[in-house]
Amino acid sequence: MTASPGARASLEDFDQVFERVKNWGRWGPDDQLGTLNFITTERVRDAAHLVRSGRRVSMAIPINKVAGPDNPNQALHFVTQGHDIDIGSSGLTFGLDFLGMAFHGDCHTHVDALCHIAYKGLTYNGKRAAEVLTSHGATTQDIAVQAVGLVGRGVLFDLPRFRGVPWLEPGEAVTRAELEAVERAQGVAIGEGDIFVFRTGHHRRRLETGAWDNSPAGEGKAGLHIDTIPWMHERGISAFLPDGDGEAIPSCVDGMTYPIHPLQITAMGMLTADSLNLEDLSRLCAEEGRYAFMVVGLPLRLPGGTGSPWNPIAIF
Amino acid sequence: MTASPGARASLEDFDQVFERVKNWGRWGPDDQLGTLNFITTERVRDAAHLVRSGRRVSMAIPINKVAGPDNPNQALHFVTQGHDIDIGSSGLTFGLDFLGMAFHGDCHTHVDALCHIAYKGLTYNGKRAAEVLTSHGATTQDIAVQAVGLVGRGVLFDLPRFRGVPWLEPGEAVTRAELEAVERAQGVAIGEGDIFVFRTGHHRRRLETGAWDNSPAGEGKAGLHIDTIPWMHERGISAFLPDGDGEAIPSCVDGMTYPIHPLQITAMGMLTADSLNLEDLSRLCAEEGRYAFMVVGLPLRLPGGTGSPWNPIAIF
Amino acid sequence: MTASPGARASLEDFDQVFERVKNWGRWGPDDQLGTLNFITTERVRDAAHLVRSGRRVSMAIPINKVAGPDNPNQALHFVTQGHDIDIGSSGLTFGLDFLGMAFHGDCHTHVDALCHIAYKGLTYNGKRAAEVLTSHGATTQDIAVQAVGLVGRGVLFDLPRFRGVPWLEPGEAVTRAELEAVERAQGVAIGEGDIFVFRTGHHRRRLETGAWDNSPAGEGKAGLHIDTIPWMHERGISAFLPDGDGEAIPSCVDGMTYPIHPLQITAMGMLTADSLNLEDLSRLCAEEGRYAFMVVGLPLRLPGGTGSPWNPIAIF
Amino acid sequence: MTASPGARASLEDFDQVFERVKNWGRWGPDDQLGTLNFITTERVRDAAHLVRSGRRVSMAIPINKVAGPDNPNQALHFVTQGHDIDIGSSGLTFGLDFLGMAFHGDCHTHVDALCHIAYKGLTYNGKRAAEVLTSHGATTQDIAVQAVGLVGRGVLFDLPRFRGVPWLEPGEAVTRAELEAVERAQGVAIGEGDIFVFRTGHHRRRLETGAWDNSPAGEGKAGLHIDTIPWMHERGISAFLPDGDGEAIPSCVDGMTYPIHPLQITAMGMLTADSLNLEDLSRLCAEEGRYAFMVVGLPLRLPGGTGSPWNPIAIF
Repeated sequence: MTASPGARASLEDFDQVFERVKNWGRWGPDDQLGTLNFITTERVRDAAHLVRSGRRVSMAIPINKVAGPDNPNQALHFVTQGHDIDIGSSGLTFGLDFLGMAFHGDCHTHVDALCHIAYKGLTYNGKRAAEVLTSHGATTQDIAVQAVGLVGRGVLFDLPRFRGVPWLEPGEAVTRAELEAVERAQGVAIGEGDIFVFRTGHHRRRLETGAWDNSPAGEGKAGLHIDTIPWMHERGISAFLPDGDGEAIPSCVDGMTYPIHPLQITAMGMLTADSLNLEDLSRLCAEEGRYAFMVVGLPLRLPGGTGSPWNPIAIF
Repeated sequence: MTASPGARASLEDFDQVFERVKNWGRWGPDDQLGTLNFITTERVRDAAHLVRSGRRVSMAIPINKVAGPDNPNQALHFVTQGHDIDIGSSGLTFGLDFLGMAFHGDCHTHVDALCHIAYKGLTYNGKRAAEVLTSHGATTQDIAVQAVGLVGRGVLFDLPRFRGVPWLEPGEAVTRAELEAVERAQGVAIGEGDIFVFRTGHHRRRLETGAWDNSPAGEGKAGLHIDTIPWMHERGISAFLPDGDGEAIPSCVDGMTYPIHPLQITAMGMLTADSLNLEDLSRLCAEEGRYAFMVVGLPLRLPGGTGSPWNPIAIF
Repeated sequence: MTASPGARASLEDFDQVFERVKNWGRWGPDDQLGTLNFITTERVRDAAHLVRSGRRVSMAIPINKVAGPDNPNQALHFVTQGHDIDIGSSGLTFGLDFLGMAFHGDCHTHVDALCHIAYKGLTYNGKRAAEVLTSHGATTQDIAVQAVGLVGRGVLFDLPRFRGVPWLEPGEAVTRAELEAVERAQGVAIGEGDIFVFRTGHHRRRLETGAWDNSPAGEGKAGLHIDTIPWMHERGISAFLPDGDGEAIPSCVDGMTYPIHPLQITAMGMLTADSLNLEDLSRLCAEEGRYAFMVVGLPLRLPGGTGSPWNPIAIF
Repeated sequence: MTASPGARASLEDFDQVFERVKNWGRWGPDDQLGTLNFITTERVRDAAHLVRSGRRVSMAIPINKVAGPDNPNQALHFVTQGHDIDIGSSGLTFGLDFLGMAFHGDCHTHVDALCHIAYKGLTYNGKRAAEVLTSHGATTQDIAVQAVGLVGRGVLFDLPRFRGVPWLEPGEAVTRAELEAVERAQGVAIGEGDIFVFRTGHHRRRLETGAWDNSPAGEGKAGLHIDTIPWMHERGISAFLPDGDGEAIPSCVDGMTYPIHPLQITAMGMLTADSLNLEDLSRLCAEEGRYAFMVVGLPLRLPGGTGSPWNPIAIF
């Protein structure tokens, strides 16, 4: 399947892609790692040995505590003890705080567990969603299975730089053909076990023009065309780190608002993140003249969690 | 200053050590990184090149949601949307959750920002505590200044293994002399920019005998004698990752309950963490036959935060 | 059905009582008020006219912020702005705070909505529990249907005073016969629309002997025998305000831990509260020489809520 | 002091009013009740005896869980247990939830404790604000001192009905002269111990035209002119229940954004509430043909709290 940028797909097309890329059973019936299985210890070592300059950048948006159109669930951050409370009258004081986050938000850099998405009542590997996730938390496929984090070789696909624009406009869907053109232009191929870092300039646009209009009748977002899914599957990509959430809104699938998430997470079992800040990374890649680097992303070790806020970094 | 294990110190001794190891002004009057300045880009690269087997372990305790004697502020974890809520009637469902943490707890693996501790009204670099930390959060020396995380060479000091015991008992204070003996026994020296990983077996004891009694009249904890502080200062250690919080309770300083924190954080400007889980690390070091490894610890990018929950890892 | 204090019941007995007292359909198929329908406007007026001395007491436990054996979900209370933050440099400062509660706890005085309990998949009036309460909140039978609160004539049944003991011991189950004896001794009858205030001394015991052991293998609680349920039904009681939660633990029903809640809430549609503090009320009743008074209890107006923390009062 | 609607005042005028109405010391140096002292037990009884029809209304806005321009701190409401979790396999299920509120918001109906406001470093009765409110909560003048709630005679001043408009426009300041005209028109006088219920139509405007623009450069609000403060003082009003927050924005005092709060709370020690919903009350007063009624408002019993969410009612 290859598509032109504006090509539409039906729910049947979606289901065909879903079946085609489905990794259910590939690593055993009870596997919870999905495409992270591609990252062998050798690939971890090789990723570490990519480090040359030792420079690094955060790929996270600073945690956003102010509600807004694209941040309906702002983080709660409260100082619970200030330096007005002495401990034992010895002149020693401790500042303490509380952080609360409904972290699956469009402004909160976070990672998704495989239990996060279900399609037709099933999660990755064909597990019943109602049993995978109860009102008490996930019983399997939670974020805690990724306790040792994401460590591997990341490759940035810098779409705005490739196109010579500040950012992709809402509604634009990047196709497989364009990703392959970016690879050629950047002189770096992405392969098995690699981490696909996908920049649309989403965060830069927010910084320059203000909050995105995320209302149902809003302005939409730039993201991926579903013809990129088989490409990811063929390449053996392990993880996906976009600066939006990978979805083009309106989507290219009639009748489905978010087709990319179920194809990546539910069908392939791919570790995906949302809402990264790739602006510093874009600049550093240009300065260093390279688009491949060591990535480390460390979810909190949260049993039962459907994901985690995180602060992944790139090391050059 | 060297001490025997049971040696007592006075508040005057404490103040002398404080003055002796004080790094205020060393990296400029407005420095916020403290001993992280020791970790140059070269040292980041060298740490990455330590990776040989590609194996890794988490150094975090799974996030603890059940209140108890040593967990008075259990984490809040709520599923805010289950797979009973369909998105757009297309069969697609998203599980969402909320995580809330007063993360500076004895059971929550976390990292401290330099604003976390003040002594006699001042934080690191001599800043006025009331201005550094307001009821709205930290205005400087917050955890967000460490957005690119802690990346460097870690060295485990495995005290229980050295002593041949399952864990150190409450109240035991490890001295400089013992740390130097551990270095010799393990065949690895810790030097400038290195990360001091300090295992007392605190978490193992909890797993085997139940919650610590953290009440004021409780059983105490194993930790450091303050004669180790000048040693850390001389060696140029960049960061401190213990499995308790580094404090021996009762402390060795008469009239001060927690002497280690202000000496490390306020005087030296050292990145310190609390409540790590070093059990898997201890086993892996033994298996790999090495006590030095790459460490990556990534705080959330929380503006104004006095610290962050985190999940640091070791890569071999 | 009448029972001696220690009489046991089976699940079949339970189901028979359930059917016998079931008010489903009594006030229409979509009724959400249940036994609050007994409180007519005339009864509100009559309750107000009971006021003679104008003295009043709170029936709430102070909100408990410290975790403990009987308070696993302590309230979160954080000052979010102190008087260190000036508004507009005019000398004016505002102190602000945040309160968070998982309020259905044994130490949190709260009221239950009818959606709170389901038996065999159904809530009051035979509604399907999975539709009544989704992961997004209650769609019907939520606490917001009680926006005008509970206002009526309360009658205290002061069991410890009747028995001449400081409190009822764990496991004791109060029977219909004893309630009728209390009525005679106190010289006051409870009738249609009245609010049944039930004191076992639960809170006094906590104050004097420390936290209850609420573990599954714990010490149990004093409460009601299920033979009191038909009595409540016959009398037309509108609401139930106990100082424990009404349940005797171990319960008198083999195979069911909490039989009272489903009989009151699910079968009868009764407004029930939990964990009141009836100590001041007990004293004031004795001083005033009367056991009937005006009650006002005002839940927060929380759409979708399964209940609410509250602070009901008695006015004499 | 009497003023025409648009009359301006200076900070000096403000300070003069502050001194004139100051009740510091009036009820003793350690009094924490302020103008609630006016509500004697006789007045409680008389208020109860005002009840004739037994009809009642809530004066609270339903708790608002959606962030918006005038609701920057939306309430958090999470179902923490649904009816998918069986208790003991007996068919019994409990729905549970968590409610979290930074309740001092323009859309959250709440009551203020006297510790909430300080002027020039002092709270009511001349207490040092830094000691009254620490980062751990209020040490005095907290909302828990009002555990028995607000019970008394309320008098509605229905400004929109008086003027024949749907609501007062942003920036309009109601003067003493107009309040006195409303009294005459409504045929009811407000006197010592009475509760001043002040309707501007704030909530109706929100319902009809959408969220208020509460940004600093926003549209403003209707409220009180400061010449009403001496009138409240002379009349001996005990409490203030407005549908906005009583402040006219822009205020009539040059250089001070919120003059009403410190005059009421700090100078007079008056119980004040914010953000009531007086729409149902307005209708019921018209139907019943009376503007005086019993009021009951019950704060949560929150030790250390600067206020509380609440749901006050009027009973006719």
